[in-house]
Amino acid sequence: MSSDAPAFTRRGFLVVVSGPSGVGKTSFCTHLLETRSDAIRSVSATTRAPRPGEVDGRDYFYLDGAAFAAKVAAGEFLEHAEVHGHRYGTPRRFVDAQVAEGRIVLLNIDVQGGVQVKSRYADAVAIFVWPPSLDALKVRLETRAQDDPAEIARRLADAPGELAQHGKYDYLVVNEDLPAALARVSAIVEAERARVSRLVPAVPLAHKEDR
Amino acid sequence: MSSDAPAFTRRGFLVVVSGPSGVGKTSFCTHLLETRSDAIRSVSATTRAPRPGEVDGRDYFYLDGAAFAAKVAAGEFLEHAEVHGHRYGTPRRFVDAQVAEGRIVLLNIDVQGGVQVKSRYADAVAIFVWPPSLDALKVRLETRAQDDPAEIARRLADAPGELAQHGKYDYLVVNEDLPAALARVSAIVEAERARVSRLVPAVPLAHKEDR
Repeated sequence: MSSDAPAFTRRGFLVVVSGPSGVGKTSFCTHLLETRSDAIRSVSATTRAPRPGEVDGRDYFYLDGAAFAAKVAAGEFLEHAEVHGHRYGTPRRFVDAQVAEGRIVLLNIDVQGGVQVKSRYADAVAIFVWPPSLDALKVRLETRAQDDPAEIARRLADAPGELAQHGKYDYLVVNEDLPAALARVSAIVEAERARVSRLVPAVPLAHKEDR
Repeated sequence: MSSDAPAFTRRGFLVVVSGPSGVGKTSFCTHLLETRSDAIRSVSATTRAPRPGEVDGRDYFYLDGAAFAAKVAAGEFLEHAEVHGHRYGTPRRFVDAQVAEGRIVLLNIDVQGGVQVKSRYADAVAIFVWPPSLDALKVRLETRAQDDPAEIARRLADAPGELAQHGKYDYLVVNEDLPAALARVSAIVEAERARVSRLVPAVPLAHKEDR
Protein backbone atom coordinates (compact mmCIF):
# COMPACT_ATOMS: atom_id res chain seq x y z
CA MET A 1 0.00 0.00 0.00
CA SER A 2 2.91 2.37 -0.72
CA SER A 3 2.75 5.02 -3.45
CA ASP A 4 4.03 2.63 -6.11
CA ALA A 5 1.50 -0.05 -5.11
CA PRO A 6 -1.85 1.71 -4.66
CA ALA A 7 -4.50 0.13 -2.45
CA PHE A 8 -7.14 0.62 -5.12
CA THR A 9 -7.66 1.31 -8.76
CA ARG A 10 -10.79 3.02 -10.03
CA ARG A 11 -13.12 2.11 -12.85
CA GLY A 12 -13.78 4.73 -15.54
CA PHE A 13 -17.17 6.32 -16.10
CA LEU A 14 -19.23 8.46 -18.44
CA VAL A 15 -19.79 12.15 -17.80
CA VAL A 16 -22.78 13.59 -19.64
CA VAL A 17 -22.62 17.36 -20.05
CA SER A 18 -25.98 18.54 -21.25
CA GLY A 19 -28.38 21.47 -21.29
CA PRO A 20 -30.16 23.58 -23.88
CA SER A 21 -28.39 24.69 -27.04
CA GLY A 22 -26.21 27.74 -26.37
CA VAL A 23 -25.75 27.12 -22.64
CA GLY A 24 -22.00 26.50 -22.98
CA LYS A 25 -21.68 22.70 -22.93
CA THR A 26 -18.60 22.75 -25.14
CA SER A 27 -16.73 25.15 -22.80
CA PHE A 28 -17.15 22.67 -19.96
CA CYS A 29 -15.94 19.71 -22.01
CA THR A 30 -12.95 21.66 -23.33
CA HIS A 31 -12.01 22.73 -19.79
CA LEU A 32 -12.19 19.16 -18.49
CA LEU A 33 -10.10 17.85 -21.39
CA GLU A 34 -7.48 20.53 -20.83
CA THR A 35 -7.21 19.90 -17.10
CA ARG A 36 -7.60 16.11 -16.75
CA SER A 37 -5.25 13.65 -18.41
CA ASP A 38 -7.69 10.85 -17.56
CA ALA A 39 -10.56 12.40 -19.56
CA ILE A 40 -11.36 11.87 -23.22
CA ARG A 41 -14.28 13.08 -25.33
CA SER A 42 -16.63 10.92 -27.27
CA VAL A 43 -17.27 12.06 -30.84
CA SER A 44 -20.97 11.88 -31.73
CA ALA A 45 -22.49 11.11 -35.08
CA THR A 46 -25.01 13.55 -36.60
CA THR A 47 -27.07 14.12 -39.72
CA ARG A 48 -26.73 17.89 -39.48
CA ALA A 49 -24.33 19.71 -41.81
CA PRO A 50 -20.88 20.73 -40.52
CA ARG A 51 -20.65 24.28 -39.24
CA PRO A 52 -17.82 26.44 -40.60
CA GLY A 53 -14.53 25.17 -39.17
CA GLU A 54 -15.89 21.83 -37.98
CA VAL A 55 -13.97 18.72 -38.99
CA ASP A 56 -15.44 15.26 -39.68
CA GLY A 57 -14.22 12.76 -37.07
CA ARG A 58 -13.07 15.50 -34.69
CA ASP A 59 -16.24 17.53 -34.04
CA TYR A 60 -18.75 14.97 -35.27
CA PHE A 61 -19.02 12.06 -37.61
CA TYR A 62 -21.27 13.54 -40.33
CA LEU A 63 -23.63 10.94 -41.76
CA ASP A 64 -26.54 11.09 -44.18
CA GLY A 65 -29.92 9.87 -43.02
CA ALA A 66 -29.53 6.38 -44.49
CA ALA A 67 -26.10 5.77 -42.95
CA PHE A 68 -27.35 6.99 -39.57
CA ALA A 69 -30.41 4.73 -39.73
CA ALA A 70 -28.21 1.73 -40.57
CA LYS A 71 -26.11 2.31 -37.46
CA VAL A 72 -29.24 2.64 -35.33
CA ALA A 73 -30.48 -0.68 -36.72
CA ALA A 74 -27.11 -2.32 -36.00
CA GLY A 75 -27.26 -1.18 -32.34
CA GLU A 76 -24.08 0.84 -32.69
CA PHE A 77 -25.35 3.81 -30.69
CA LEU A 78 -25.33 4.10 -26.92
CA GLU A 79 -28.08 6.70 -27.34
CA HIS A 80 -29.57 8.54 -30.27
CA ALA A 81 -32.14 11.27 -30.58
CA GLU A 82 -33.65 13.68 -33.04
CA VAL A 83 -33.06 17.20 -31.79
CA HIS A 84 -33.86 20.49 -33.52
CA GLY A 85 -34.70 18.46 -36.66
CA HIS A 86 -31.37 16.57 -36.85
CA ARG A 87 -30.33 13.14 -35.61
CA TYR A 88 -27.49 12.69 -33.10
CA GLY A 89 -25.99 9.50 -31.69
CA THR A 90 -23.13 8.32 -29.45
CA PRO A 91 -21.04 5.40 -30.78
CA ARG A 92 -21.12 2.65 -28.16
CA ARG A 93 -17.91 0.71 -28.88
CA PHE A 94 -15.52 3.62 -28.31
CA VAL A 95 -17.19 4.59 -25.02
CA ASP A 96 -17.19 1.07 -23.58
CA ALA A 97 -13.53 0.51 -24.47
CA GLN A 98 -12.39 3.76 -22.82
CA VAL A 99 -14.38 3.19 -19.62
CA ALA A 100 -12.94 -0.32 -19.38
CA GLU A 101 -9.47 1.24 -19.44
CA GLY A 102 -10.33 3.51 -16.49
CA ARG A 103 -10.92 6.71 -18.46
CA ILE A 104 -13.54 9.39 -17.95
CA VAL A 105 -15.47 9.69 -21.20
CA LEU A 106 -17.13 13.07 -21.80
CA LEU A 107 -20.39 13.19 -23.73
CA ASN A 108 -21.37 16.67 -24.88
CA ILE A 109 -24.95 15.87 -25.84
CA ASP A 110 -28.48 17.20 -26.01
CA VAL A 111 -30.93 16.84 -23.12
CA GLN A 112 -32.89 13.93 -24.62
CA GLY A 113 -29.67 12.03 -25.28
CA GLY A 114 -28.44 12.68 -21.75
CA VAL A 115 -31.66 11.30 -20.28
CA GLN A 116 -31.29 8.17 -22.43
CA VAL A 117 -27.68 7.63 -21.35
CA LYS A 118 -28.58 8.05 -17.67
CA SER A 119 -31.48 5.57 -17.95
CA ARG A 120 -29.23 2.94 -19.60
CA TYR A 121 -26.00 3.57 -17.68
CA ALA A 122 -27.02 4.23 -14.09
CA ASP A 123 -23.34 4.75 -13.26
CA ALA A 124 -23.03 7.67 -15.72
CA VAL A 125 -22.57 11.10 -14.13
CA ALA A 126 -25.18 13.41 -15.65
CA ILE A 127 -24.56 17.15 -15.36
CA PHE A 128 -27.21 19.65 -16.45
CA VAL A 129 -25.91 23.10 -17.34
CA TRP A 130 -28.54 25.74 -16.62
CA PRO A 131 -28.58 29.16 -18.32
CA PRO A 132 -28.62 32.44 -16.36
CA SER A 133 -31.83 33.22 -18.31
CA LEU A 134 -33.60 32.42 -21.58
CA ASP A 135 -32.59 35.87 -22.78
CA ALA A 136 -28.95 35.07 -22.15
CA LEU A 137 -29.38 31.88 -24.16
CA LYS A 138 -30.82 33.87 -27.09
CA VAL A 139 -27.92 36.33 -26.99
CA ARG A 140 -25.40 33.48 -26.95
CA LEU A 141 -26.96 31.67 -29.88
CA GLU A 142 -27.06 34.91 -31.88
CA THR A 143 -23.52 35.92 -30.94
CA ARG A 144 -21.87 32.62 -31.81
CA ALA A 145 -23.53 32.93 -35.22
CA GLN A 146 -23.21 29.23 -35.99
CA ASP A 147 -26.81 28.72 -36.97
CA ASP A 148 -29.24 30.60 -39.21
CA PRO A 149 -32.17 32.53 -37.66
CA ALA A 150 -34.66 29.71 -38.25
CA GLU A 151 -32.34 27.22 -36.52
CA ILE A 152 -31.80 29.62 -33.60
CA ALA A 153 -35.55 30.13 -33.26
CA ARG A 154 -36.07 26.36 -33.21
CA ARG A 155 -33.40 25.88 -30.54
CA LEU A 156 -34.89 28.61 -28.35
CA ALA A 157 -38.37 27.15 -28.73
CA ASP A 158 -37.03 23.77 -27.55
CA ALA A 159 -35.26 25.20 -24.48
CA PRO A 160 -38.15 25.35 -21.95
CA GLY A 161 -39.02 21.70 -22.57
CA GLU A 162 -35.37 20.75 -22.18
CA LEU A 163 -35.00 22.71 -18.94
CA ALA A 164 -38.00 20.83 -17.55
CA GLN A 165 -35.93 17.59 -17.80
CA HIS A 166 -33.27 18.69 -15.30
CA GLY A 167 -34.70 16.49 -12.54
CA LYS A 168 -33.44 13.41 -14.42
CA TYR A 169 -29.84 14.54 -14.01
CA ASP A 170 -27.47 14.06 -11.06
CA TYR A 171 -26.05 17.57 -10.87
CA LEU A 172 -27.15 21.03 -11.90
CA VAL A 173 -24.66 23.84 -12.49
CA VAL A 174 -25.86 27.37 -13.30
CA ASN A 175 -23.60 28.90 -15.95
CA GLU A 176 -23.87 32.47 -14.71
CA ASP A 177 -20.20 33.10 -13.78
CA LEU A 178 -18.21 30.91 -16.20
CA PRO A 179 -15.02 30.41 -14.10
CA ALA A 180 -17.10 29.49 -11.04
CA ALA A 181 -19.23 27.13 -13.10
CA LEU A 182 -16.14 25.49 -14.65
CA ALA A 183 -14.68 24.99 -11.17
CA ARG A 184 -17.89 23.37 -9.99
CA VAL A 185 -17.98 20.95 -12.92
CA SER A 186 -14.33 20.10 -12.29
CA ALA A 187 -15.17 19.41 -8.65
CA ILE A 188 -17.99 17.09 -9.70
CA VAL A 189 -15.68 15.02 -11.89
CA GLU A 190 -12.94 14.95 -9.24
CA ALA A 191 -15.44 13.88 -6.59
CA GLU A 192 -16.86 11.13 -8.78
CA ARG A 193 -13.33 9.73 -9.14
CA ALA A 194 -13.45 9.08 -5.39
CA ARG A 195 -16.71 7.05 -5.43
CA VAL A 196 -16.50 3.85 -3.42
CA SER A 197 -18.79 2.12 -5.93
CA ARG A 198 -16.07 2.40 -8.59
CA LEU A 199 -13.21 1.09 -6.47
CA VAL A 200 -11.41 -2.02 -7.58
CA PRO A 201 -9.26 -3.51 -4.79
CA ALA A 202 -5.67 -3.78 -5.99
CA VAL A 203 -3.65 -5.02 -3.02
CA PRO A 204 -4.85 -6.10 0.42
CA LEU A 205 -4.13 -3.80 3.35
CA ALA A 206 -1.58 -5.49 5.60
CA HIS A 207 1.01 -4.73 8.17
CA LYS A 208 4.55 -4.95 6.88
CA GLU A 209 6.15 -8.28 7.74
CA ASP A 210 8.83 -6.67 9.89
CA ARG A 211 6.40 -5.17 12.40
CA MET B 1 -33.23 34.49 -12.60
CA SER B 2 -30.58 37.24 -12.27
CA SER B 3 -27.75 37.01 -9.73
CA ASP B 4 -29.85 38.59 -6.99
CA ALA B 5 -32.78 36.22 -7.66
CA PRO B 6 -31.31 32.74 -8.02
CA ALA B 7 -33.27 30.09 -9.91
CA PHE B 8 -32.72 27.61 -7.10
CA THR B 9 -31.79 27.30 -3.49
CA ARG B 10 -30.15 24.17 -2.12
CA ARG B 11 -30.97 22.10 0.95
CA GLY B 12 -28.19 21.50 3.45
CA PHE B 13 -26.75 18.06 4.16
CA LEU B 14 -24.56 16.04 6.50
CA VAL B 15 -20.96 15.23 5.64
CA VAL B 16 -19.56 12.29 7.59
CA VAL B 17 -15.75 12.27 7.72
CA SER B 18 -14.67 8.92 9.08
CA GLY B 19 -11.86 6.36 9.10
CA PRO B 20 -9.67 4.65 11.66
CA SER B 21 -8.22 6.59 14.58
CA GLY B 22 -5.13 8.53 13.52
CA VAL B 23 -6.02 8.74 9.82
CA GLY B 24 -6.39 12.53 9.90
CA LYS B 25 -10.16 13.08 10.11
CA THR B 26 -9.76 16.32 12.06
CA SER B 27 -7.45 17.86 9.40
CA PHE B 28 -10.17 17.38 6.79
CA CYS B 29 -12.89 18.91 8.95
CA THR B 30 -10.69 21.87 9.89
CA HIS B 31 -9.85 22.48 6.22
CA LEU B 32 -13.50 22.42 5.20
CA LEU B 33 -14.48 24.78 8.03
CA GLU B 34 -11.71 27.20 7.05
CA THR B 35 -12.61 27.23 3.37
CA ARG B 36 -16.42 27.05 3.34
CA SER B 37 -18.61 29.65 4.99
CA ASP B 38 -21.61 27.33 4.54
CA ALA B 39 -20.07 24.53 6.64
CA ILE B 40 -20.35 24.04 10.39
CA ARG B 41 -19.14 21.22 12.60
CA SER B 42 -21.26 19.14 14.90
CA VAL B 43 -19.88 18.72 18.41
CA SER B 44 -20.18 15.13 19.62
CA ALA B 45 -20.76 13.91 23.15
CA THR B 46 -18.35 11.38 24.67
CA THR B 47 -17.66 9.52 27.88
CA ARG B 48 -13.90 9.61 27.33
CA ALA B 49 -11.77 12.05 29.33
CA PRO B 50 -10.68 15.33 27.70
CA ARG B 51 -7.20 15.26 26.14
CA PRO B 52 -4.80 18.03 27.10
CA GLY B 53 -5.99 21.28 25.51
CA GLU B 54 -9.49 20.05 24.68
CA VAL B 55 -12.41 22.23 25.74
CA ASP B 56 -15.87 21.03 26.79
CA GLY B 57 -18.49 22.18 24.28
CA ARG B 58 -15.90 22.97 21.62
CA ASP B 59 -14.11 19.65 21.09
CA TYR B 60 -16.70 17.40 22.72
CA PHE B 61 -19.43 17.49 25.29
CA TYR B 62 -17.87 15.38 28.07
CA LEU B 63 -20.47 13.28 29.86
CA ASP B 64 -20.27 10.57 32.48
CA GLY B 65 -21.79 7.18 31.71
CA ALA B 66 -25.12 7.89 33.41
CA ALA B 67 -25.66 11.23 31.64
CA PHE B 68 -24.78 9.65 28.29
CA ALA B 69 -27.20 6.76 28.86
CA ALA B 70 -29.98 9.20 29.74
CA LYS B 71 -29.54 11.03 26.43
CA VAL B 72 -29.56 7.72 24.53
CA ALA B 73 -32.82 6.80 26.29
CA ALA B 74 -34.32 10.20 25.41
CA GLY B 75 -33.48 9.70 21.70
CA GLU B 76 -31.28 12.77 21.66
CA PHE B 77 -28.54 11.18 19.52
CA LEU B 78 -28.56 10.90 15.76
CA GLU B 79 -26.10 8.03 16.19
CA HIS B 80 -24.11 6.65 19.09
CA ALA B 81 -21.50 3.95 19.40
CA GLU B 82 -18.98 2.48 21.80
CA VAL B 83 -15.55 2.77 20.25
CA HIS B 84 -12.20 1.90 21.79
CA GLY B 85 -14.00 1.43 25.12
CA HIS B 86 -15.69 4.86 25.19
CA ARG B 87 -19.14 6.03 24.13
CA TYR B 88 -19.63 8.68 21.44
CA GLY B 89 -22.83 10.28 20.16
CA THR B 90 -24.02 13.02 17.78
CA PRO B 91 -26.71 15.38 19.13
CA ARG B 92 -29.66 15.27 16.76
CA ARG B 93 -31.35 18.62 17.35
CA PHE B 94 -28.38 20.78 16.37
CA VAL B 95 -27.76 18.82 13.18
CA ASP B 96 -31.37 18.91 12.01
CA ALA B 97 -31.67 22.66 12.63
CA GLN B 98 -28.51 23.48 10.68
CA VAL B 99 -29.43 21.29 7.69
CA ALA B 100 -32.86 22.91 7.59
CA GLU B 101 -31.12 26.28 7.27
CA GLY B 102 -29.14 25.07 4.23
CA ARG B 103 -25.84 24.43 6.00
CA ILE B 104 -23.35 21.62 5.50
CA VAL B 105 -22.90 19.91 8.87
CA LEU B 106 -19.58 18.12 9.33
CA LEU B 107 -19.50 15.01 11.50
CA ASN B 108 -15.99 13.89 12.47
CA ILE B 109 -16.91 10.46 13.76
CA ASP B 110 -15.77 6.88 14.11
CA VAL B 111 -16.49 4.25 11.46
CA GLN B 112 -19.38 2.57 13.34
CA GLY B 113 -21.04 5.95 13.88
CA GLY B 114 -20.60 6.87 10.22
CA VAL B 115 -22.27 3.65 9.10
CA GLN B 116 -25.19 4.37 11.47
CA VAL B 117 -25.62 7.90 10.13
CA LYS B 118 -25.55 6.71 6.52
CA SER B 119 -28.14 4.01 7.21
CA ARG B 120 -30.48 6.52 8.87
CA TYR B 121 -29.85 9.56 6.65
CA ALA B 122 -29.54 8.24 3.10
CA ASP B 123 -28.88 11.80 1.95
CA ALA B 124 -25.76 12.12 4.15
CA VAL B 125 -22.46 12.25 2.28
CA ALA B 126 -20.18 9.62 3.82
CA ILE B 127 -16.44 10.00 3.21
CA PHE B 128 -14.02 7.28 4.33
CA VAL B 129 -10.44 8.43 4.86
CA TRP B 130 -8.00 5.59 4.14
CA PRO B 131 -4.47 5.49 5.59
CA PRO B 132 -1.36 5.08 3.42
CA SER B 133 -0.60 1.99 5.55
CA LEU B 134 -1.26 0.53 9.00
CA ASP B 135 2.33 1.40 9.87
CA ALA B 136 1.70 5.03 8.99
CA LEU B 137 -1.35 4.95 11.27
CA LYS B 138 0.78 3.63 14.15
CA VAL B 139 3.38 6.35 13.63
CA ARG B 140 0.68 9.04 13.60
CA LEU B 141 -0.98 7.80 16.79
CA GLU B 142 2.40 7.65 18.53
CA THR B 143 3.52 11.05 17.23
CA ARG B 144 0.42 12.96 18.22
CA ALA B 145 0.89 11.53 21.72
CA GLN B 146 -2.71 12.14 22.74
CA ASP B 147 -3.30 8.65 24.03
CA ASP B 148 -1.41 6.29 26.30
CA PRO B 149 0.22 3.14 24.85
CA ALA B 150 -2.68 0.86 25.85
CA GLU B 151 -5.17 3.20 24.13
CA ILE B 152 -2.97 3.38 21.01
CA ALA B 153 -2.71 -0.41 20.92
CA ARG B 154 -6.51 -0.71 21.20
CA ARG B 155 -7.05 1.79 18.37
CA LEU B 156 -4.59 -0.02 16.09
CA ALA B 157 -6.20 -3.37 16.86
CA ASP B 158 -9.59 -1.92 15.85
CA ALA B 159 -8.30 -0.47 12.54
CA PRO B 160 -8.52 -3.55 10.25
CA GLY B 161 -12.15 -4.15 11.19
CA GLU B 162 -12.92 -0.48 10.60
CA LEU B 163 -11.21 -0.48 7.20
CA ALA B 164 -13.35 -3.45 6.20
CA GLN B 165 -16.44 -1.18 6.51
CA HIS B 166 -15.39 1.22 3.75
CA GLY B 167 -17.88 -0.27 1.26
CA LYS B 168 -20.72 1.31 3.27
CA TYR B 169 -19.43 4.80 2.48
CA ASP B 170 -20.02 6.96 -0.60
CA TYR B 171 -16.47 8.15 -1.17
CA LEU B 172 -12.99 6.92 -0.30
CA VAL B 173 -10.00 9.27 -0.12
CA VAL B 174 -6.50 7.92 0.52
CA ASN B 175 -4.64 10.28 2.86
CA GLU B 176 -1.19 9.71 1.40
CA ASP B 177 -0.44 13.25 0.13
CA LEU B 178 -2.33 15.54 2.53
CA PRO B 179 -2.80 18.60 0.23
CA ALA B 180 -4.08 16.36 -2.59
CA ALA B 181 -6.39 14.53 -0.19
CA LEU B 182 -7.74 17.82 1.22
CA ALA B 183 -8.41 19.05 -2.32
CA ARG B 184 -10.30 15.86 -3.12
CA VAL B 185 -12.47 16.13 -0.01
CA SER B 186 -13.18 19.78 -0.87
CA ALA B 187 -14.20 18.71 -4.38
CA ILE B 188 -16.58 16.12 -2.93
CA VAL B 189 -18.34 18.70 -0.78
CA GLU B 190 -18.46 21.24 -3.62
CA ALA B 191 -19.87 18.62 -5.99
CA GLU B 192 -22.52 17.54 -3.48
CA ARG B 193 -23.69 21.16 -3.31
CA ALA B 194 -24.64 20.80 -6.98
CA ARG B 195 -26.84 17.68 -6.53
CA VAL B 196 -30.16 17.96 -8.32
CA SER B 197 -31.81 15.97 -5.51
CA ARG B 198 -31.18 18.86 -3.09
CA LEU B 199 -32.49 21.64 -5.32
CA VAL B 200 -35.40 23.70 -4.11
CA PRO B 201 -36.97 25.74 -6.95
CA ALA B 202 -36.94 29.42 -6.02
CA VAL B 203 -38.26 31.30 -9.02
CA PRO B 204 -39.69 29.94 -12.27
CA LEU B 205 -37.60 30.30 -15.41
CA ALA B 206 -39.30 32.81 -17.72
CA HIS B 207 -38.55 35.18 -20.51
CA LYS B 208 -38.37 38.79 -19.45
CA GLU B 209 -41.62 40.61 -20.08
CA ASP B 210 -40.01 43.04 -22.50
CA ARG B 211 -38.91 40.38 -24.99
